[in-house]
Amino acid sequence: MTNQSEIKITEVALRDGSHAISHQYTVDQVTATAKALNEAHVPYIEVSHGDGLGGSSLQYGLSKTNELELIEAAVSVADFSKIAVLLLPGIGTIEDLKEAANLGAKMARVATHVTEADVSKQHIQTARDLGMETVGFLMMSHMAPTDKLLEQAKLMESYGADTVYVVDSAGALLPNQVKERIKALKQALNINIGFHGHNNLSLAMGNTLAAIEEGATRIDGSIRCLGAGAGNTQTEVLVAVLEKMGIQTGIDLYKIMDIAEDIVAPYLPKPQEINRDSLTLGYAGVYSSFLLHANRAAEKFSVESRDILVELGKREIVGGQEDMIVDVAAELSKAARK
Amino acid sequence: MTNQSEIKITEVALRDGSHAISHQYTVDQVTATAKALNEAHVPYIEVSHGDGLGGSSLQYGLSKTNELELIEAAVSVADFSKIAVLLLPGIGTIEDLKEAANLGAKMARVATHVTEADVSKQHIQTARDLGMETVGFLMMSHMAPTDKLLEQAKLMESYGADTVYVVDSAGALLPNQVKERIKALKQALNINIGFHGHNNLSLAMGNTLAAIEEGATRIDGSIRCLGAGAGNTQTEVLVAVLEKMGIQTGIDLYKIMDIAEDIVAPYLPKPQEINRDSLTLGYAGVYSSFLLHANRAAEKFSVESRDILVELGKREIVGGQEDMIVDVAAELSKAARK
Repeated sequence: MTNQSEIKITEVALRDGSHAISHQYTVDQVTATAKALNEAHVPYIEVSHGDGLGGSSLQYGLSKTNELELIEAAVSVADFSKIAVLLLPGIGTIEDLKEAANLGAKMARVATHVTEADVSKQHIQTARDLGMETVGFLMMSHMAPTDKLLEQAKLMESYGADTVYVVDSAGALLPNQVKERIKALKQALNINIGFHGHNNLSLAMGNTLAAIEEGATRIDGSIRCLGAGAGNTQTEVLVAVLEKMGIQTGIDLYKIMDIAEDIVAPYLPKPQEINRDSLTLGYAGVYSSFLLHANRAAEKFSVESRDILVELGKREIVGGQEDMIVDVAAELSKAARK
Repeated sequence: MTNQSEIKITEVALRDGSHAISHQYTVDQVTATAKALNEAHVPYIEVSHGDGLGGSSLQYGLSKTNELELIEAAVSVADFSKIAVLLLPGIGTIEDLKEAANLGAKMARVATHVTEADVSKQHIQTARDLGMETVGFLMMSHMAPTDKLLEQAKLMESYGADTVYVVDSAGALLPNQVKERIKALKQALNINIGFHGHNNLSLAMGNTLAAIEEGATRIDGSIRCLGAGAGNTQTEVLVAVLEKMGIQTGIDLYKIMDIAEDIVAPYLPKPQEINRDSLTLGYAGVYSSFLLHANRAAEKFSVESRDILVELGKREIVGGQEDMIVDVAAELSKAARK
């Protein structure tokens, strides 16, 4: 076990958490939350649409407030915390990144599917040119074996990323799988290793500790668990756990607990929990956007939606291949009739 | 790592979950839940007041329905599952146990504080005489070092328990602490080892996997996380995780997921989550009953309630020593004035 003495946390409730409230953040909410996070000495606060800069759309969900206004609001109250933005090449653009940097964002997190790191090159380099701290964010990391993940992480390192994250987007990884991945990256890379967990299998915290044990020093957390699917590693709980372990985060525990209770919880329409849908996504290891398609196909072909999703997970179907959902449903239906 | 090929789960939503709904279970709810759990092939279903047989009282919370009626209802619909009851000597009596056995309960779980196993002798022996499968349940296991825990577990084994559980009542243990404890018990005892986790530090599932890795074969779960504090290891999620790991539980995954969504969730007043209070209890490692006392003492002495609870945890104050709460508050207040 690598004994980490310091972990730097990025708070993602104002980005990943946007999914949990249907992208309805207001300037007031973001200002109040960012101000309090800054006072609690959270090192990084990510602010963007749930699907990153430029995500506001009919396809990904329309934001109530232009994200640039939210970034500006967060920057205006954060004299300690650095404001981070997420960018998925193909959804957000280099121009979006430049606008965010102009507004005062200091960290760019460039996210790609775990096997598509090559599309991040230009964005990571631009972020560096803009003077931003840069993070490569390998989403759906459970879908690649460790050697493939390592190859892709090395690409991001070669583009100039300061940190590369193993991102368990579907909350599908188990602790031993996290350990194997982080260990391989830690051994082969010379940059910071990060971990971003989701709680679909109730393992966000367990996986996060497994990642830290193997040398991850950058960790994402979300206040009150607020995030896509079943939510993320719960920040205020993580700070408490790390304090018990004697690991420093620099974050004031009581303040972060109070932010969760007094600022964030009151604006949530409902608490984050692990329900049938989010559990199914974690069990199958598929994109949350597949759920609605699978439910429709299940009805049409009189098969179980969960069986479709599990099969899609086995076949490692990714975003853009949604036409496969109907094919799989038809196959399952045919197999059942035999 | 011990590769467990089979884990037997005890569902505790109808006992520990009783805390989460203020002991308001009705015969209809218990009947519907137990019937469905039986159909999903859950091996054991625990039914009792949250504080065990005889717990219905002003001190522990009055049950809406006499627990004997609830046990009878569960037994009447369970031809596969065995109905278990919890008994805390001092709250429940030998007579309560006999009544439960008469109604058809087949498993007795006798619970004591981790350092007080000796009070379970008569109850474990009586349960055996009644032909019941017997479990020794060492509560607040985080409060004893491993050698003390082992000594107490050996007592329960010597009384005739078929299984002994490490019970993380306050949700205060970390995965490595669970591993150390389970490993020691597994090496020294010849009976089944069990683990009962709480989610106050978001580690119920991570700790459960750590316990299984070291050889625990009996695991408690609660549908929809329903239990005291921040709730328990979520059963339907645990079944999914174990399926992914190739470990058999005998439980039908889709059925248990549907019970959570369609039967249990609708009768919950609100979802179980980790809030400031439950996090504080896990962080401090104290009884949930201390919370209200600490809040009152904090107000009286103008100190932080959390500081009182953390100090109580450090001093390993247990139930019955509630007078210490005011003393600690006074000391903290005095120290702050210096």
